[in-house]
Amino acid sequence: MTLEEKVAQIIQGDIDGWMNTTDPLDNTLVFNQSGLEDMMSTKAGSIWGGYAMPYEKFVFALNVGQKYLMENTSLGIPAMFQSEGLHGFTNNGTIFPSPIGLAASFNPELLSSVANIIATEAEGLGLSQIFAPVLDMSRELRWGRVEENFGEDPFLTGEMGLAYVSGLQNGTRRNVTADGSGGIRKRMAATCKHFTAYGSPMAGLNTAPVVGSERDLRTIYLPAFQKACLESLAIMTAYSAYDSVPLVANKHILSDILRDEWQYPYWVTTDAGAVDLLISQHKTCDTRECAAKAVIENGLSGEMGGGSYTYLTLPDQVAAGTVNESYIDETVKAMLRTKFTLGLFESPYPYSDYLSTIRTPESRQVLLQMEEEAIVLLENRDNVLPLSTDISSIALIGPQVNRVTFGDYVFFNASLNGITPLAGFQEFLSNRSSSTRINFAQGCELWSNDQSGFDEAVSAAQQSDVAIVMVGTWSLDQTLLWTPGTNATTGEHVDLSSLSLVGAQLPLVEAIVNTGKPTVVVFVSGKPVSEPWIQAHANAVIQQFYPGELGGFALPEIIFGAVNPSGKLPVSFPRSVGTTPDFYNYLNGMRPVDAGMITDNDTLVFGHQYVLNSPIPIWSFGHGLSYTTFNYTDLSLNPTSIGTSDNFNVTVTVHNTGLVDGKEVVQVYLSDVVSSVVTPVQRLVGFQKIDLPAGSSQTVSIEVVSSQLALWNLDNEWAVEPGVFTVTIGTSDEILSQATLTVTA
Amino acid sequence: MTLEEKVAQIIQGDIDGWMNTTDPLDNTLVFNQSGLEDMMSTKAGSIWGGYAMPYEKFVFALNVGQKYLMENTSLGIPAMFQSEGLHGFTNNGTIFPSPIGLAASFNPELLSSVANIIATEAEGLGLSQIFAPVLDMSRELRWGRVEENFGEDPFLTGEMGLAYVSGLQNGTRRNVTADGSGGIRKRMAATCKHFTAYGSPMAGLNTAPVVGSERDLRTIYLPAFQKACLESLAIMTAYSAYDSVPLVANKHILSDILRDEWQYPYWVTTDAGAVDLLISQHKTCDTRECAAKAVIENGLSGEMGGGSYTYLTLPDQVAAGTVNESYIDETVKAMLRTKFTLGLFESPYPYSDYLSTIRTPESRQVLLQMEEEAIVLLENRDNVLPLSTDISSIALIGPQVNRVTFGDYVFFNASLNGITPLAGFQEFLSNRSSSTRINFAQGCELWSNDQSGFDEAVSAAQQSDVAIVMVGTWSLDQTLLWTPGTNATTGEHVDLSSLSLVGAQLPLVEAIVNTGKPTVVVFVSGKPVSEPWIQAHANAVIQQFYPGELGGFALPEIIFGAVNPSGKLPVSFPRSVGTTPDFYNYLNGMRPVDAGMITDNDTLVFGHQYVLNSPIPIWSFGHGLSYTTFNYTDLSLNPTSIGTSDNFNVTVTVHNTGLVDGKEVVQVYLSDVVSSVVTPVQRLVGFQKIDLPAGSSQTVSIEVVSSQLALWNLDNEWAVEPGVFTVTIGTSDEILSQATLTVTA
Repeated sequence: MTLEEKVAQIIQGDIDGWMNTTDPLDNTLVFNQSGLEDMMSTKAGSIWGGYAMPYEKFVFALNVGQKYLMENTSLGIPAMFQSEGLHGFTNNGTIFPSPIGLAASFNPELLSSVANIIATEAEGLGLSQIFAPVLDMSRELRWGRVEENFGEDPFLTGEMGLAYVSGLQNGTRRNVTADGSGGIRKRMAATCKHFTAYGSPMAGLNTAPVVGSERDLRTIYLPAFQKACLESLAIMTAYSAYDSVPLVANKHILSDILRDEWQYPYWVTTDAGAVDLLISQHKTCDTRECAAKAVIENGLSGEMGGGSYTYLTLPDQVAAGTVNESYIDETVKAMLRTKFTLGLFESPYPYSDYLSTIRTPESRQVLLQMEEEAIVLLENRDNVLPLSTDISSIALIGPQVNRVTFGDYVFFNASLNGITPLAGFQEFLSNRSSSTRINFAQGCELWSNDQSGFDEAVSAAQQSDVAIVMVGTWSLDQTLLWTPGTNATTGEHVDLSSLSLVGAQLPLVEAIVNTGKPTVVVFVSGKPVSEPWIQAHANAVIQQFYPGELGGFALPEIIFGAVNPSGKLPVSFPRSVGTTPDFYNYLNGMRPVDAGMITDNDTLVFGHQYVLNSPIPIWSFGHGLSYTTFNYTDLSLNPTSIGTSDNFNVTVTVHNTGLVDGKEVVQVYLSDVVSSVVTPVQRLVGFQKIDLPAGSSQTVSIEVVSSQLALWNLDNEWAVEPGVFTVTIGTSDEILSQATLTVTA
Repeated sequence: MTLEEKVAQIIQGDIDGWMNTTDPLDNTLVFNQSGLEDMMSTKAGSIWGGYAMPYEKFVFALNVGQKYLMENTSLGIPAMFQSEGLHGFTNNGTIFPSPIGLAASFNPELLSSVANIIATEAEGLGLSQIFAPVLDMSRELRWGRVEENFGEDPFLTGEMGLAYVSGLQNGTRRNVTADGSGGIRKRMAATCKHFTAYGSPMAGLNTAPVVGSERDLRTIYLPAFQKACLESLAIMTAYSAYDSVPLVANKHILSDILRDEWQYPYWVTTDAGAVDLLISQHKTCDTRECAAKAVIENGLSGEMGGGSYTYLTLPDQVAAGTVNESYIDETVKAMLRTKFTLGLFESPYPYSDYLSTIRTPESRQVLLQMEEEAIVLLENRDNVLPLSTDISSIALIGPQVNRVTFGDYVFFNASLNGITPLAGFQEFLSNRSSSTRINFAQGCELWSNDQSGFDEAVSAAQQSDVAIVMVGTWSLDQTLLWTPGTNATTGEHVDLSSLSLVGAQLPLVEAIVNTGKPTVVVFVSGKPVSEPWIQAHANAVIQQFYPGELGGFALPEIIFGAVNPSGKLPVSFPRSVGTTPDFYNYLNGMRPVDAGMITDNDTLVFGHQYVLNSPIPIWSFGHGLSYTTFNYTDLSLNPTSIGTSDNFNVTVTVHNTGLVDGKEVVQVYLSDVVSSVVTPVQRLVGFQKIDLPAGSSQTVSIEVVSSQLALWNLDNEWAVEPGVFTVTIGTSDEILSQATLTVTA
C-alpha cells in the first residue's frame, strides 16, 4: 500500500461524496463519478452511510461505492459502511427502547436478540459497522446523553454491553464461512463507545473534562469496556479529556491499556470532528498537523469526518519526518483485522432480498417483549394497579399521552413508526372488546407553563374512575435535535441544570391528584425525573424510559395487568439535582444522613444532610415492583471461604408467593467489609432474570468471579484482599437475604 | 523519654481533665488533682483549651496544667494549649469577618494584621496554638464549610493563607529571644487545615470522599498549602479520603510529599475523632490498633481527642512488634520542633496583663477596616448608591436587619458582641446628625415560609425613599450549631442541596422590588446565594459575607458612601445549584454555551447548555464595583520573552478617573495558550490592592514567578512549557488590558 492509500484507509469517507443526500425523499439512482473518485482517493477505509434515504437508492449508492473500491482500485479493499444503532438501526429500521430502557429490562439475553435484529436489518443493506453500544454511565444526570447509556453501574453496563456486542456481531455474513482462514468471524462490527469516562462531564456539560484518578478509571470507567468490548470489532474514543488528557490522544488509555494490556487488535476510531477539538477545545494543539500527530501516535486510531480531516496532513508529515509511518501501519492493520474478521472481502455488498430482513414479525415480537420488560413499576399503593378492563372509564392526561417520545439517535420522522400511548390504550382495549371509556385531555404542553388546559384535564379526571397522567422529558430525532429553534430536554448536547419536570407538568399532576381520583403517574423520560412530591402523592408511579415503536402499546399491557411488570431501575432517582450524584455504589463515608425537608404545607424541617433535603434517592438502583410477590430462601455461598483467586457461587431459591406469574431479577450485591482503600458501600456483582409461575419456586445459582472482589490498591494494581465480604440478595436499598464470604490469603 | 511519655506527647489532652468546663459562667478556681495527673500521664503534648470560660478561671486552669508538666514530671515538657481562631480568637476574643469575607478584601497585609490580633489575644492567656487558617477551597458550594475558606482559587487561598500564617506566627513570646539557639522563633503556632482537598466532598456532603487525580492534587489542592504552610508550626489533616485513601493515613500526601518533598519539619495532627473514622466511615480498619498504626506510620501525626484515643494502643503495639517505635519518635520530634520554635520552654505561661491585649482600640480599628474592605458591591444600577445622608427616609427590611449573623467557629453567644445592621444604621446616622428616618420591618424569618410580615414590610418600603432588604444564609456559634433542634443553613456539618434563599426571603425581595421603590438588596451570607432574579431586578446588590463584630456598622458606611467599596468576590456566584461547579478557572473545553432561560413571565426559552439556564455565573470571581472608576494604561511585561525558569513582571498604570477616592485590586490572570495537557482557561497569578485618590494614578508592578507558569505534565512532573501565554489585567470575566508572554526553551 502506498502511504496515501494507507491514510485513505484510516479516514472516514461519506456516501455524500457521490450521492445527493440532502433530500431524504429523493430516490434518483444517479451518482457523481468525480465525487466518488475524489472520496475514494483520500477517505476509503470506512464510509458513513447513516442516512435516511429510500432503500433502493441506498443500496444503489453502496453498490456503486463498494464496486469502485473492489474493482477500480489497485488494492481492492472494501469499505466498512457505517450507521447508527444504539436502539435500532437508524436507516429506517425498527426502533427499540432507548438504551437506558433496554438496561431496565435487566435481561441481557433479550438485549442480545434486539442487537441481533439491529444487525440483521443493517446487514441486508450492506452495512458492516454500527456505532453502538454506548458504555458511558449515567453518573452525571444533567448530561444530555444519559438515555444512551445502560445506567449508572459498571457491572450492569458491562453485562448489557456484552449482550449487545455479542448479539450484534455473532454470526457470519453471507458467503462467509464461520471457520474462514482468518479465524474468528463476525457479521457486523459493533463499536463500543465512548472510550472512556465520557459520561461524567464536569457540571453535566457535554464533552466537558472528566475529573478522576487512575483508580476511578480502573474501577468505574474501564470495567464495562473490558467486559464487553475485547471482541467488539471497533471502539470509538470520547470527545472529552480525562484528568486533563484528551481521550482521542490518550496514550495511557488507548495504547498502554487498550492495545498493550488488553491486547485489543481491532479498529479504533475518533468521534465526529473530535480530532479538531484538540485545537478548538482542549487547546493542546494549535495546528492540524499537531492534532493528527497526537491522535495517530497516541491513539492508533482513525479519524472520523465532521471536522477538518487533519489526517490529510499525515503524508506530508511522514515525508517531513514528524510522524513515524509505523503508527499509520499499525492503525491500518487494525482496520484490516476488523475487515478480515467481518469477511468483508468475501461479502462486501448488500443482499438483493434485504427487504425480507427488515421489520419481520419475529423482530416485532422481540420488540414488544423488550417494551414490556423495560417498564418499571415504581409505586403501587394499595395495589391500585393493575386496573381491570371492566373499569368503566379512565382518563389519559398529559403531554406524553398523544405523542411518541423516542430518545435521540433515531432517524428523521422515526416517531411516525411508533404508536402513541393514546392509540395503544385504544388498541389494547379494543383487542379485548373492553367497554372502558377513555377520556383524553392533554392538559399542557411539555415545553410551556401554560395551564389553560388544566380545566379540561381536571374535568376528564373527575369523569373517570382512574386518572393516568403521562409526563416527562423529551428528545428529538437526529435531524430535529440539531436544528436551531427546536426544543428538547434530553439528548446529545442538551444538558439540564434541573431534573424536575419542565413547565406546567408538575402542577398538572398536582391538579389531577387533588381531584381525589386514583392517579397513576407515568414518567416517559430519558433520565430520572426528580419529583419527590409525585412519589409521595400518586397512587402509582410507572417509569417508562423512552420506549421504542411499541411503547405506547406496552403501557396498557402493564397498567391492565396483561403483562406483569419486571423492569428494574438501572439508575437511581435523586430527590433533586442538588442531591446528585446519588448512585447506589457510592464510596464508604459519603452519606451521613440527617435529612431535612420542606413539607407539603411549606413548613421547613431542618436537617443537616441536607438542610432541607435528603441524599437518599427517591428510588434507588435495582428497584422495581411486580404484581406478584417473591420470597427468597436457602441462600448459600459455595464455597463460603475462598482463596484470593477463586470464584464462588451464590445459590438461592426464589418463590413466587403471589397470585400471578411474574419475572424477577435476582440481584447479588457485594460489600468489602474492610479494605486497604475506601471501596463502595456495595456493588452489583451478578444478576439473573427468571420467569416464575404463580406458586412456583426456582433455585438460581449465580457465579461471582474472583475479579469482582478486587480493588485497585495503593500499588496501582488489582488485588483481592483476604477478609470478609458481605453478599446481599436484594436491591441496592433492600436486603432480602444476606451471607458472609471469607477470603483467605 | 519512655515509650509512654512519647505517646502522651502525641495524644491531645483537654483541660476538662482537671477543670469543670460545662458551665461557661462558672468562675470557681478549683481543679481536680487526680484528673490532672491522669490526663498528663497519657495526653500531655498538646491540650485543648478552646472553652468559653471566664478569663481568670482559664488562666488558672492553664497555669495549673502547665506548672504540673514543667515541675512535676520528669521531662518538664510544656504543653501547647490550643484554641480556635479562623476569624477571631474563640475564647471570647474579637470576631472578624468569616474567612470568605476576609478573602473578599483581597488585602493580605490587612489579613496579616487580623491574624496578628488573634495571636495577641490568645498569647496573653497562655495559648500557643490556633487551629487556623483553613486552606480548603470553595469549589463545592453545597458544602457547609464554604464560609471557612478563602474562596475558590488556589492562588488567592495561598496568598491569604500565607498572610494569616505570617501574621499569626511572626514575633516571639515574651522571654524568648528572636535569635534563640533553636534558630527561627515564632510566637504562636498556626495550624493549616484541612490537609488536603477537604473542600470538594462528593455531593457537598461533609467529610465525604473527594474525587481527584495526582494532577488535581498538585495543581488545585496542594499549592495553597505549599505556599502558606511550610513555616506554619502545625498542619491538621482532613477527615475525608482523597482518591479512596483516607487523608489521616495517606502516606503519599503526608509522608512522601509533605515530609520528604517539602521537608516539612513541624507538628501534624489529625482532626477531632478523625482516626476512628478509619473504622466507622472509611472502613479501612476494623480495630483501634489498625487505625492507630495506619495513622502513625503513614501520617507521622498526632491524635486529637474527640474519639476513642486509638493511640493508647501504641505502647502495646510497639511491645508486640506491630508498630515500629521509630514512627512515634519522628512524630514526637516534630512536636518538639514546634515547641522549641515557639520558645515554649522559656515562655509556657499566661501573662498577668493579658487583659491589656484583648479588644484594644487598635485592634478595633483593624476590625473596622476589614469589615469595610470585605464588603463587595455587586450591582449598582444608575448609581443608586451611595445614598445621601440627606435622604429623608430609608426602609430596612428583612430577617438579617436586626440580627448579628456570624459564621461558624465563634464561641457561645459571641453574636452579643456584634452590632446589628439596624443598630449600625442608627449609630451611623446619629454620628452624622442625619435626620434620615429608618423604617424597619423584618418581613419574615430566615427559616420560615410565613409571609404574614410582608404587608408591614411593603408598607415600610412605600413610606421610604429607598428600600434596603437584607437576606441570606445563617450559621450558629459552636455550641448552638451542634445542639439538636437548632437550625442553620451553613457551617460545619450543615450541607445544602440548594443555593437559593430559604423560605420566604425571595418572595420578600420580590414584594419590595415590586413596590417600585429603589431597592438595595444585601446578601449577608456564608456562601454564594443563587438568585438571578435579584441580580436582574434589584437596583443595587451588596454582598456581605458573614461579618465580624462591626459588620452592622460597616454596611451603612458603604451604603452612604462614607467608605468606597473595594471588596472583590473570592468565589463565583452560580445561577443555581444545578449549574455548579462554576469556578472561574475551569478547564478548557468545559463550557460551550447556548444558554436557555425561564423569563420573568415564566416563558421557557430553550437552549442547550443548559436547556433552561446558563453555566455562566451571575457574578464571577474577582468581580466587585466601586463608587469611582478606574482606567488601566501602559501594560507591559518585563521581559516579554523568558526562559522556562524565569520570573517576569507585569507593570500597569492605574488611574482613578472618577470623583471619589477608592481602593482597587489589580488582578493578573494567566492563560496557557497551548499546552501538552488541558489547562484552566485562566488562573489568577498575582494581585495587589492599591488606594488611589480621585484623579490620581499609580504604576503597579507585580512579579509572576516561574512556577506559576507550570503545569503537571504527562510524566507527573512540574514543567513550564515553551510557547505563548496570555496575561490579562481585569477580573475573571472582564479584560481590561492584555499582553502576550513568550516562553522559550
